[in-house]
Amino acid sequence: MRIGELSRRTGVPVPTVKYYVREGLLPPGLLTSPNQAAYDETHERRLRLIRALLDVGGLKVAAIREVLAAVDDPGRPVHDVLGQATNSIIKRHGDETDDEAAAAREEVAALIARRAWRVDPGNPAVGALVAALAALGRLGHGGFARVLDDYADAAQAVARADLAYVAGRAAMDDLVESVVIGTVMGDAVFMALRRLAQVDESARTYGGGKAPR
Amino acid sequence: MRIGELSRRTGVPVPTVKYYVREGLLPPGLLTSPNQAAYDETHERRLRLIRALLDVGGLKVAAIREVLAAVDDPGRPVHDVLGQATNSIIKRHGDETDDEAAAAREEVAALIARRAWRVDPGNPAVGALVAALAALGRLGHGGFARVLDDYADAAQAVARADLAYVAGRAAMDDLVESVVIGTVMGDAVFMALRRLAQVDESARTYGGGKAPR
Repeated sequence: MRIGELSRRTGVPVPTVKYYVREGLLPPGLLTSPNQAAYDETHERRLRLIRALLDVGGLKVAAIREVLAAVDDPGRPVHDVLGQATNSIIKRHGDETDDEAAAAREEVAALIARRAWRVDPGNPAVGALVAALAALGRLGHGGFARVLDDYADAAQAVARADLAYVAGRAAMDDLVESVVIGTVMGDAVFMALRRLAQVDESARTYGGGKAPR
Repeated sequence: MRIGELSRRTGVPVPTVKYYVREGLLPPGLLTSPNQAAYDETHERRLRLIRALLDVGGLKVAAIREVLAAVDDPGRPVHDVLGQATNSIIKRHGDETDDEAAAAREEVAALIARRAWRVDPGNPAVGALVAALAALGRLGHGGFARVLDDYADAAQAVARADLAYVAGRAAMDDLVESVVIGTVMGDAVFMALRRLAQVDESARTYGGGKAPR
């Protein structure tokens, strides 16, 4: 199909499609004349993935490029690829050295030990968790650590559902793509559900039965 | 304190502090001479909040401005403020009209009815959830709806922990700020925990006991 048809099918404007090609997110079409390229279903699918990561997942173009590189990298051990794909998505955090960061680091190490989680201490998610707890500490919310295990219980339940979902897809060739989609979209789904559950819980606690906006 | 001391205490560079003042995120200091302003602990605290929302929460400057406006708006009913504060954070989504969006809209309505959640259908989180599920559908992951209740169970558990945490803070004057902090930081905490739990679950399932990176 021509770029105009690709644009029509996906709702992505033609100049934006060209921008993604220039940025290396979308493979170029097959040149059929000096000024015309042909695109196929793989382009359409990749374009939908880019838009989902961008619009729903809130990822930046650079992060999407990294994620897609992991998706396109074949022949690596499954759990290694799973790790890499999720690592590409998570924000990187510097090594802060204040008291709150030190306390957060200890809390996270204790949590991992307590739950016997088989994770590398160098996993970027460890740094992200430390950064979040340290920021909470600096804002006078060190007490948030008290609900950390409630969060971890919920995270484990979601992770089990995630793995079961991915395993149910079976086809190994789209495994990494499934993991990326599931991880990024899953975050968006969970955040939205958490908001709705908070509103419901708050209505029950404070609202006297009236449904709030 | 002078702007240099404020910068030293918070680790935020002086030009960045000035930028936040210009953007209306941080109230200006009290002018002590035509070229010098005095800042106090409220500025320090506000600056830490801005950095946490930016660095850990990943919010954009415009979203932070909205959230802080909610924080600074006194005298509204608690559950209304709770709703407003979380609404300011969530991404807004347009009304898509394709089959996937229609299917997602039905799924979300059924979920809310099934769980008897007291939420307004116009709540932005409903739109965000619909957008995420529609994007999944367009990527061939309509089957994700099968794990939606696992996600909702976990979200409810987290929301209960959130509300209990906020209720435990007691002081009404920082309630909204607590909700904002808890909501944004809680997302970051949960996402990091979900990654770690996924790695652990994946190591147990696929890794034969070796801890992956």
